Parts: sequence; structure tokens; C-alpha cells
Amino acid sequence: MSLQVGIIGLGMIGQDHLRRLTHTLSDVSVVAVADIDRKRAASIAPAGAELCDTPHALIRSQKVQAVVICSWGPAHEEQLLECIAVGKPVFCEKPMVTSEEGALRVMDAEVAFGRRLVQVGFMRRFDADYRALKAVIDDGSLGLPLIYRSVHRNASVPEGLYTSEMPLNDTLVHDADISRWLLNDEIAGVEVRFPRRSRQGGELRDPTIVLLHMVSGAIVDVEISVNIEYGYDIRGEVSCETGVAALPNRPATVISDRYGIRQAIPADFRERFIEAYDQEFREWIAAASQGTAAGPSVWDGYAATLVADAALRAAQSGRREAVSMKPKAGLYAETSR
Amino acid sequence: MSLQVGIIGLGMIGQDHLRRLTHTLSDVSVVAVADIDRKRAASIAPAGAELCDTPHALIRSQKVQAVVICSWGPAHEEQLLECIAVGKPVFCEKPMVTSEEGALRVMDAEVAFGRRLVQVGFMRRFDADYRALKAVIDDGSLGLPLIYRSVHRNASVPEGLYTSEMPLNDTLVHDADISRWLLNDEIAGVEVRFPRRSRQGGELRDPTIVLLHMVSGAIVDVEISVNIEYGYDIRGEVSCETGVAALPNRPATVISDRYGIRQAIPADFRERFIEAYDQEFREWIAAASQGTAAGPSVWDGYAATLVADAALRAAQSGRREAVSMKPKAGLYAETSR
Amino acid sequence: MSLQVGIIGLGMIGQDHLRRLTHTLSDVSVVAVADIDRKRAASIAPAGAELCDTPHALIRSQKVQAVVICSWGPAHEEQLLECIAVGKPVFCEKPMVTSEEGALRVMDAEVAFGRRLVQVGFMRRFDADYRALKAVIDDGSLGLPLIYRSVHRNASVPEGLYTSEMPLNDTLVHDADISRWLLNDEIAGVEVRFPRRSRQGGELRDPTIVLLHMVSGAIVDVEISVNIEYGYDIRGEVSCETGVAALPNRPATVISDRYGIRQAIPADFRERFIEAYDQEFREWIAAASQGTAAGPSVWDGYAATLVADAALRAAQSGRREAVSMKPKAGLYAETSR
Amino acid sequence: MSLQVGIIGLGMIGQDHLRRLTHTLSDVSVVAVADIDRKRAASIAPAGAELCDTPHALIRSQKVQAVVICSWGPAHEEQLLECIAVGKPVFCEKPMVTSEEGALRVMDAEVAFGRRLVQVGFMRRFDADYRALKAVIDDGSLGLPLIYRSVHRNASVPEGLYTSEMPLNDTLVHDADISRWLLNDEIAGVEVRFPRRSRQGGELRDPTIVLLHMVSGAIVDVEISVNIEYGYDIRGEVSCETGVAALPNRPATVISDRYGIRQAIPADFRERFIEAYDQEFREWIAAASQGTAAGPSVWDGYAATLVADAALRAAQSGRREAVSMKPKAGLYAETSR
Repeated sequence: MSLQVGIIGLGMIGQDHLRRLTHTLSDVSVVAVADIDRKRAASIAPAGAELCDTPHALIRSQKVQAVVICSWGPAHEEQLLECIAVGKPVFCEKPMVTSEEGALRVMDAEVAFGRRLVQVGFMRRFDADYRALKAVIDDGSLGLPLIYRSVHRNASVPEGLYTSEMPLNDTLVHDADISRWLLNDEIAGVEVRFPRRSRQGGELRDPTIVLLHMVSGAIVDVEISVNIEYGYDIRGEVSCETGVAALPNRPATVISDRYGIRQAIPADFRERFIEAYDQEFREWIAAASQGTAAGPSVWDGYAATLVADAALRAAQSGRREAVSMKPKAGLYAETSR
Repeated sequence: MSLQVGIIGLGMIGQDHLRRLTHTLSDVSVVAVADIDRKRAASIAPAGAELCDTPHALIRSQKVQAVVICSWGPAHEEQLLECIAVGKPVFCEKPMVTSEEGALRVMDAEVAFGRRLVQVGFMRRFDADYRALKAVIDDGSLGLPLIYRSVHRNASVPEGLYTSEMPLNDTLVHDADISRWLLNDEIAGVEVRFPRRSRQGGELRDPTIVLLHMVSGAIVDVEISVNIEYGYDIRGEVSCETGVAALPNRPATVISDRYGIRQAIPADFRERFIEAYDQEFREWIAAASQGTAAGPSVWDGYAATLVADAALRAAQSGRREAVSMKPKAGLYAETSR
Repeated sequence: MSLQVGIIGLGMIGQDHLRRLTHTLSDVSVVAVADIDRKRAASIAPAGAELCDTPHALIRSQKVQAVVICSWGPAHEEQLLECIAVGKPVFCEKPMVTSEEGALRVMDAEVAFGRRLVQVGFMRRFDADYRALKAVIDDGSLGLPLIYRSVHRNASVPEGLYTSEMPLNDTLVHDADISRWLLNDEIAGVEVRFPRRSRQGGELRDPTIVLLHMVSGAIVDVEISVNIEYGYDIRGEVSCETGVAALPNRPATVISDRYGIRQAIPADFRERFIEAYDQEFREWIAAASQGTAAGPSVWDGYAATLVADAALRAAQSGRREAVSMKPKAGLYAETSR
Repeated sequence: MSLQVGIIGLGMIGQDHLRRLTHTLSDVSVVAVADIDRKRAASIAPAGAELCDTPHALIRSQKVQAVVICSWGPAHEEQLLECIAVGKPVFCEKPMVTSEEGALRVMDAEVAFGRRLVQVGFMRRFDADYRALKAVIDDGSLGLPLIYRSVHRNASVPEGLYTSEMPLNDTLVHDADISRWLLNDEIAGVEVRFPRRSRQGGELRDPTIVLLHMVSGAIVDVEISVNIEYGYDIRGEVSCETGVAALPNRPATVISDRYGIRQAIPADFRERFIEAYDQEFREWIAAASQGTAAGPSVWDGYAATLVADAALRAAQSGRREAVSMKPKAGLYAETSR
């Protein structure tokens, strides 16, 4: 018996998940969709799926057992609260919400409900390379992790649309979340430094160096470059006490030709993380079918919100800005894995 | 509407495919099983699946729309012919059959039926690394392929059970099939050479060098080592006119420690090709749902049989032994990709 | 006609250079030595070499055309001034001097002399890998350098002897010098951060992260780990506007065995930089034979002193500490290459 | 006291060695030269060097203690015999001689003399990568070597001048010599196979596969491609009983840009083996200064001649052609290292 899913928001990422849930994954059916552009929704919806006028209607629909939220960020809080109100499992694309207060409201609601219902869309945790890296760290044979270097290079961003705040409140969240997860740690403070500006991005402040000071004392050293042109190049390296572990090159054909001995670099995040997205939903479907959620939780979405806020403050102040989280509810005790 | 599948043979590989069809893949259900060990079948069969007394019964079952054959090799021919007789799509593990005559009988039957029904289990063609390598070759920017080196290293084989003929009639078929597919070519002749014997395998003749002379003149240079101990190490490199293309290392964590800077090597074929097996069945399900077959065909199974025979002759004679194939039926015109 | 050289100081590094000048390199002879341990000097000195009672005597010796200083740091200033006073070319191991005032006194003397006489022992500039990296950066095809990551990992340091100041005033100088040289830039400010402490070094503050803010705005992000146990692992990576360039793995045999596919990592700096030391002296001999010096200059030694001072201050203050250099004399105009 | 050397032949390779002996290496002086083009010799000879009218005159010159032969192959035998006659150490570029009989005459002369005088120019044995590979094999921890794959790819050869025989009697000698040395083995038989012809070389028969059957039973599998266009790409991989060891990539800067993540490949043999040539002469100078020779011997030159002959016969016959060597004189007992 497959999970009956409704999707809110059919923009680029919503359409991608629709395709994934319809054609790639098993034990799931898309039975309802809602989009502010009803015409678009009608043209995209799979045969037999209900076209809902509002997210509210979709969440309340009898046919819908679980919800996938791909609407824009500011709409997430209300939709999440609605899902929790009716006790339906929900997958929510990042950002979970757009303010600390919003995160706390969602967290309070879920804690009051008493069972995890929300999975937040940090897909890197489902990537095989990151999982293998974490297994090496967790194994402990290299000693404790001391420094994690996270490199986040994007070929390009839409000029004008991508502002100088976005490396910190949009791009950084992936590095911040994967750092917390890899190191089994929380972020205590954030510093931001701006190197010489790349001329690739016009007025955009790019690249950016961010230092995340973890509660354990480990430091996460992040490079964010969003106009590097040559590809989507994600790197991660953990310096431990007696060894170093790093993400591998992606497994591209090794070509020897006039350009040297070489391997192609992924063009964009879709190419790089396509399997991680599939796996993310595979695990969501399994948990949602049990009426609950797995993977990144509201706690993780809350942490991401705090880090983005602290990073923006740190960019202004030039100083280390603290991240201070509320006590962690028992509900989230085991979700950092 | 999912494809209703029956599985014949629930040994190691049969159980693995059962798990795959039940838990990993979408649009498919296992509705019947048959195994000579009826008790084993009963304990393994998914809830609701029919336990058939014979392969014949399974193939004829009204519930079964498509068949997966995982029985032992000598039984394949009869089961394939039966599937073709009733017009049901069938996936057949290698070896397709065990004699040239058997291959011809299956081919004649399928040609008479007039539509492809059989997919043979050469899973390497579905592996992402091989597909990327083929794309580079087919692209033509490196010129024509002249030499293909295929390295097939196995950690160990069961002593006593794995005979000195098996590198040539069991292991080699993967290298032979992938060579034909990568180079869009056929095999015209086979030579076999035996280097100094490894003491790892006792009396076993190991390793083996095989030269496959392709119709185009390209030479495939195969190393088969079946007791290399350190892992399952599959390599492939194509020397073209103006460049070389090779399979990459598998994407394992890069560890720097007292053993150097290093990446783990897969332990066995399951670890190495797990995704290829999934993809193989994904494409089979799609084709079988249309009442036909895709990927490696009876023609490819026929070629594999001829190459194994020629290799055994070449091992005896020390000379080049010819592979001569019947004319190719139109049915198979496009199956080599 | 070979260059007649005198060596001051026959400790570990002095003996290594003696061997190099005697057995490896051409166009040079060691004609005099001086060491505070006269007995050691006598036992080590090559046949026919003069045993000088003092550095002063060696520098003034008629036989000595050029001097190599391998004494301990605090003695360097006086010996350098003496060499300049008599107009003899001199190679001086790092640290050039141990105070900013000392550096200025040596610089003033050399500028007054009017010709470069001093080469400082920053051997990395002579390493083929660093030179190739610099050629890529200088070429400009990747755009301007924005971030340089320098990783400096040492297997171990002598417990007790290596203090928590030494990462900053001893180890860092190599990263600082190579950064100035690679980027054709000067250092304007220094920040120091201490990650979670490694238990490998007992009370030692290790590892260390240093951010060097260059005059251009580029940021150099340094990791210093001095007890990493697994080897001497030097890494460098330059993020430019449209590409990234990095030091390669050292060319060690690629072994596939039970530990994976792997390459050995150098054990220590001697193994890693043995060829760089040879080349450093080759170029020194060529310049000294012309009565002058090449490579790293007093200006570079002065910069190193300022950076070490600023790093120690930054470790205390937790803030960015400025490096402010005097105007650069014309004598040093072309020495950054 | 430096070794007084005379050079016969100042073509491309002779000039390169002249430069090496004059400017790079220590303990050696070029005191005489001879070339059939006396004008060229006069313009190139270092100051003070004697211009000899004939090789004979140079070899007999009182000033000359040791000889470097860079003349064309057919002249080598007479010059080597002359050097042996006067008991002078001699370095001889490959081919040592051009016939089996010639090799035997030189060997008989040296054996009669009673001490090694001749070093043959197989420079690969002095390359650090090959030496490291041999150390791994000799160490024995991977078990015995069973298969050695030697890949010899050349960017291009002069059209018209480079004939279809030359892969076998000119290029192959390097692979054959390094195989004997790496495996501590001798060659017993040779097979040659011609894959599909590359269109890069016009009528030239290229590439070539050669199988060398070693006395131990190990097989050396050689790919020779002489018009691969993209660079000079030398590869070597030894399959042992429990592991595999291979030459590494050359240590070129790792660049990430629009062409992928990549490292440059050497352009030609001079770039690839420049340090090996230096080391080859360093060791020759050391041995010649003691009145003898080290490294590749007349025995190795003799073996190379036999292999080239057998390879040419095998190309004709399509069969395995035997290499049968005379018993090895005691003089050469330890020279395979």
C-alpha cells in the first residue's frame, strides 16, 4: 500500500520532487497538488490527482496522508503548523521557516503533538559520500574531529536576484547543517570574513569565509564561492587527531587528452545530489508511512535559522556572534544522526 | 499498475533480486516463486505470493506477467523457451544457456515470436561508470577505440568449487559482453595466455590473460585474477587514437593516515554493482511492462556462449580461436546501443 | 672554479647542508667550518677544511668567499652584519633574526652596502610543486587569487621542547613566506583561532588556524597541526576567480592492497623537501659566485619576523593584529619572485 | 678531483649530456669532444676542451679518463671495443650495438678485460618513480609479480623517419629493459599483436601490443602507441599475488577549471625523464671515477638486442619467438639491480 502524498508548490524544485515521487520511487503516489498558479498545477498534475485551491485544502484533504512543502519560504510556517494540527507527516524544503520565532512556534507545536512529523530538506545527509565520511569520523580510529573544512563552490548565481546576504542566509545552511551532523555537535558561534571580491559577480560580495565555532571547540572553516564558473564543486575534509578524512572526487571517467589527465566536475547541485534527493525521499516515505518523520528535524531547521541570523550579524559586526539554542526537547534526542 | 513478476530460483542471487523487486524498486510486485527447495521458497516468499511447484507452473500462472530466471544454468534453456512460448517477458541471469545450440534454439524461438522478450543479466551495462565511459567513446572526440584493457580482479573464489575452466566460461563473459557493448563491436577471435601462477589459488590456473580480437581490429586485453585477496577491483581503460578514457576509482572517502592517502576498494561484486543491479531491473520493469525487453539480448547471450567456447579452445590450443556468429536477425539490430 | 664556502653551525641542518655542498652540488667547496662544539666540528669537517674558532674568524677568513649560517637564531644578526661588513654573500637559515629591530638593522646594512648579499632559507620557493603552482597563478588564466589555503601538518614535535608559541613564531613562517611569494602580495593583518585541542600533544595548543589578510584583500587560511602522527603533509590550494589550483600528491607508488588504493605520505620535511634544498643551494651558489644573492631576501626575512610577532599578539588578543612594514627599498624590488 | 670526460657525438642527445655534465653535475669536466661535423663540435665545445678529429683520437687522448658515446648506433661497437681496449670507463647511449654478434663481441671483450667498463643508457632505471615501484615489488609484501603492464605512449613521431619496425627495435627496448630490471627476470619469448591501426600515423603500424614471456612465467603486457597526440604518457603496473603496484601520476598542479579537475601530462621524454638522466650520470660519474661501471651493463644491452630481434621475427610470424641468451658471465651477476 503506497503512501498518498500531496505536494504544495510546483516550482522548479516542486516539479522535480513530483517527478521523483511519480516515476522513481516506490510505495508512494501523488494524489493532490496545490500551486498559486492553478493553470500550471493543472498542466503538471499526474492523472487522477486532486487540484486543491489552497495549501489548507490540500493538507485537510481526506486523500492526503502526507505532505511535501515546496512553496516559498515565508509560507512554510503556516503550512507546517497546519500539518501538525492534523497530525500528518510532512516533508519541508529548506528554509524550514524564516525567523527564530517561527522556528520556535513550529517546534512547540510538534513537541506538543508528541511525535516527530516534520522532515526538513537537508539532502546532503542522504548523500553516499557524506555518509561514508561520517562513518569514518564516527568510527573514531582517526581520533576526534578538530577542524572541518567545507567548500561550497557554485558555478554561477542569477545576477541581481542573488544578493550579498544569500551566501549567509541561503547557501551557508547546507554547510552548517552538514557540519552539525558530521561532527555530532552544535554551533556556538559564527565569524564571517570577506576575501578579495571576485569580479565574476559584479557588486556581489563573493567569496565568503565563515568560521563556525562548535560547542566542542572544533572549528568549521567554510569557503563559499558562488560564481566560480567551472562547476558545482563541493568539498569536505575533516582533520582529526591522527588522520584526515575527505570527500572523494565524483566518479567521472578519467580522460587523458590534450587537457591533461582529468575528470569532469558536476555542473550543478541537481547533478551532484540527484541520488541524495532520491534517498532523502525514500527514507521520508518509509517514516511517513509509519506516521512519523526521520532525518533532519525541526530542531535542525531551528539551528539553521539561528546560524543564518548569527552569520548576518557577524558579517555586520566583524566579530564572533553567538548562537544560543533553547534546551533540546526529548523528541529530538536522536535526530542528529 | 505494477508488473506482476514470478521468480524461478531462490538461491543467493534469486533472493537478492527478490529483495530488490520487493523493497527497492517501484511499479513491480513479486506474485509467484518456484524453487526446487520448496521449504526454502515457502520461508522466503513474500506474503500473498503463489508457491509454484515447477517453473512450468510459474511461467503458466495467470497471475504472472513476467518472469525472472535465477535457476542454475543448465535449466535456463527450457525455461526461456517456455516463456517465449507463452509470450511473457523474461529476465534471465547469466549464463543465458550453456551451449551454442541452446542459444540458437532460444534465438530462433524469439525471432519466430517476432518481438524481444528476453533480457540477459549483464549488469555492467547499467553501471553509471561504464555508461559514462561509453558516452566518452561514442562521442568520438578521442578518435576510434584501438585497445581496451579490462581488468577483472576478484578477492577470492571458493577453493575446489571454482575450477580452472571458470575464468574462461564464467568470469570472462562480463569482460566480453562489456567489450562488445563499449566498442560497438563483435568478437572475431580469442587468445588465452597463462602467466606465472599465483600461489593464492593452490592448483587453480590463475591469473589469466585473454586477448579478444574484435571485428574492427581493436584488441581487448583482459586480465582475470580471481584470488587477489585485497578486494574486488574492476578496471577498464580504452586507448583511442588521440586520448585515453578509463573507469574512475570508486567514490570512497579519502583517508590520510599511517597507511598513506587512500581510498577503500569494494569487497565484492555486490558492493561494486549494487546500483547497476537496481538500474538493470528498473529498465527491465519498464520494458516488460510494455510486453518486451531491453538491454542485453539473446544475441548478446549467444555471443557470450561462443566466446566462452572459443576461450576454452584457445586455452587448449595456445592459438587464436575464431568466433563466428550467424547473421544477426533484425530483431537485434539496435540492442548493442 | 668553485665557490669557497664556510659553514657556521654544524647541528642537524648544518650537517645536512655540509653533505649537500660536499657531495651533491657542483661548483662549490666547503673550505671552513665553525661550531661552538669544536670537537664535533673537527670530526665532521671535510678533509682540508679550516677549523675556525669563531664565526667572526670564519667570516674574515681569506679562504672563505661565501658563508652559510646554520647557528641558532639569536646569533644570526651579528653574523649577518659581519658578512655584510666584509661584502661576502651569505645564506642564512631561518629565522633570519629574532626581532623586528634586528631585521631592520640587517636591512639597513645591506641597503647601505648597495647590493643584495643575503639569501634567507625559505626552501619551499625552490620546490618544483610550489613553482608549478605559482606558474599557474601567475599565468592569470584562472583569474585573480582570492583565497589561499595552506595546510601544514607535522607528524610530531618533541614534547616539552616545542612550545605553544612555536606554531606561530617557528612553523607559520613557511606558510607566511610562501603565501607572499605565491600571491605576489604582502601581509596586512593576522588572526589566530584555536580549535579543539588535539590530545596528541598533551598541553600543547594544537592545532591552530591562522588567517593572513593580504594587502590585496586575499585571505590566506592556514591550518597548522604539529602532532598529526601520520606523516608530514603539506597542502596548498588557491581559489581564484574562475578556477582552483592545488599542490599535487607526492609521486609515490600507487599500491592496491588490503588498505585500499593508496600512496605513501612523506615522513618528514627532509623527505618532502630534499630536492628543494638542493635547488635552493644550486641557485644560491650561482648568485654567490657572482658576489650577490637571489631568492628570499632580507625583506622576506623582515616580513617573516613581523608576521610571527603579529601572530603571537593575535593569539593573545583574539583580534586581528596589523602587520605594518617600512617602505620597500629598491634593492628588494624584484625579489618577490 | 673531477672526472675528465670526452664526448663522442654532439647531436641532440649529445648536446643534452654535454650541458648536463658541464652545468648540472658535480665532480666531472668535459675535456674533449668529437663529432663528424667538426664545425658544430667547435661551436659547442666548452672552453678549453680538446676538439678531436676522430672517436679513436678522443678515446686515446691522455686527457680523457672516461668516454660518453652519443654517436649513431652502427658506430657504437667499434667505439666500445676501443674503450675496453684502453681500459677506460664508458657510457653508451642506446642501442648499445645493432646486432647480436656485435653485442657478443663487446661482451667477450669486457669479460676478457675482467672488470665492468660499460654502462648502457637505459635511463628509466634511475627514475625515482620506477625505483620506488621496484622497491615495493622487491619488498615482497604483495607476493610475487605475475603480470607487468607497461604503457609507452608518445605524442608523435617524425612521419617518414619513424618506420613500422621502430616500435619494436627502438621504442620497445625501454619497456623490455625496465621489465627485466623490475621483475629481476629475463625474457624467454616474445609475441607481437597489431590492433586496429590509428589514423594518426598514416601508413605506420601503430599501436602495437607486445607480450614478453619471462623466464619465471610472468607476462609483460606492453602497449606502444607512438602518435597518441596528447602527450608522453608512461605507465607501469605490476599485478602481484596479493596486490597491485603502479607508477603514480607525475606531480603536476591539480587544476579545477572548465576542463575538469586535472593534471598536465608531460609533453615528451625529456620533460618526463630529465631527473632520471641527471641521476644516471651521477651514478656513472661515481663508478667511472673508480675505474668501473654501474647500472645497465653490456649484458643488458645484449638482452635488448635479442629482444628487438625476436620482436621483429614475432611481428612477421605472428607466433611466439624465443629469446635465448648465452650463459651469464660472473661479471654481470649483480647488475640486474
